[in-house]
Amino acid sequence: MDACSAIRYENDHSLSLHGQASMNSSLPVDSYASAATLPTAHDQRRMHVLAAARTCFARSGFHGASMQQICAEAQMSPGALYRYYPSKEAIIEAIAEEERIDAAACVAALHGEGSLVDRITAVGMEYLRQTLDPDTGGLMVEIWSESIRNTALGQRFHEIEAEVRRAFHAALLRAQEDGEIDPGIDIDVVLTVLFAIGDGLVMRLQIEDDADIETIEPYLRRVIKGLLGAP
Amino acid sequence: MDACSAIRYENDHSLSLHGQASMNSSLPVDSYASAATLPTAHDQRRMHVLAAARTCFARSGFHGASMQQICAEAQMSPGALYRYYPSKEAIIEAIAEEERIDAAACVAALHGEGSLVDRITAVGMEYLRQTLDPDTGGLMVEIWSESIRNTALGQRFHEIEAEVRRAFHAALLRAQEDGEIDPGIDIDVVLTVLFAIGDGLVMRLQIEDDADIETIEPYLRRVIKGLLGAP
Repeated sequence: MDACSAIRYENDHSLSLHGQASMNSSLPVDSYASAATLPTAHDQRRMHVLAAARTCFARSGFHGASMQQICAEAQMSPGALYRYYPSKEAIIEAIAEEERIDAAACVAALHGEGSLVDRITAVGMEYLRQTLDPDTGGLMVEIWSESIRNTALGQRFHEIEAEVRRAFHAALLRAQEDGEIDPGIDIDVVLTVLFAIGDGLVMRLQIEDDADIETIEPYLRRVIKGLLGAP
Repeated sequence: MDACSAIRYENDHSLSLHGQASMNSSLPVDSYASAATLPTAHDQRRMHVLAAARTCFARSGFHGASMQQICAEAQMSPGALYRYYPSKEAIIEAIAEEERIDAAACVAALHGEGSLVDRITAVGMEYLRQTLDPDTGGLMVEIWSESIRNTALGQRFHEIEAEVRRAFHAALLRAQEDGEIDPGIDIDVVLTVLFAIGDGLVMRLQIEDDADIETIEPYLRRVIKGLLGAP
């Protein structure tokens, strides 16, 4: 999963980010999103199904969760659910498509105002806030598990992350050229460490569910600053 | 899983660390380990079973893996295997006991020579080297998954980690008192971030299996230095 893919989750409910993503990025988005109109009842039902599916996948894994479980979680009959998604594979593909939209939002946030350390810290904190709920965090652990086992599903999510990583790479390279960060750092290694910190914090905040996420911000900033060699 | 529990894995094969752990820590160790003698054939067979079990748990999870699968992986008959461990629960308990020994080794390493940043970096790098193989890394993901779902098994491993965390807390407090690190940092939050970095790197190195682990050391040091506010 990309390093701030969960930013969409909250916006998914307020429906603001699909339009934003389509404005700020050249990444393809859902056909209904680019219209930037209010969602239809059909869109709302589809999002309801995806939310139920995420809950089931987080609980039982992509392989363990069944269409029956997703129906029960969504409180829909199989007939009703199949009108939106004909198979579990179609649901997973829709979740992957959401990830692509998240990736675009992440890239957009990285290109905002302020120092690179500030921007990466802000993207990171937003990522942590949005992955704090057990469904989202649990789903990410499942995606990592697929990535580690290098399944077709894992590769699908890995490609999405690669897009975010390319954007981070470009931002760091520019900051090196501008003298904003240490010109001697190996950007590839730094990104491996940076994405590891993101993954690790998401997981750790799931385990230590009494931790106050906002207390982390100054320490995340220190870590990023140290890693990038920013003054 | 504690932040350097995998240190044992390599030593498990060379059989050096059991004795070391019993010398350097007051944590209980296996009865055969404290004798610091060469392993008997029975010990070797038992370790062979545990290695096979780790492979199966990493592949299929603690719940998904069966005694039949462990027998097949160990190339032993059920009758032979049951002589060492009467149940899957007994195998898991033996793995947890190994984790306790790892925790002791981790605590011992933290109390070595050099600056705190150097010691934590060294412990961290050793942890990463030892978790690099897919069995160990995969098992850790399974343990995190149990911890997130807060199962009895997850709690068992969480207690072991808590012991390592207490040792880290004491080391950081002492370094604060000695003026070695920033006296203003909140040790609890710093440890949450530090353990997150460890978890995240273990997972990331499983996903990016072409990454050269040794290139990470200088960046891990920068991150720890920034986090602790060390000069």
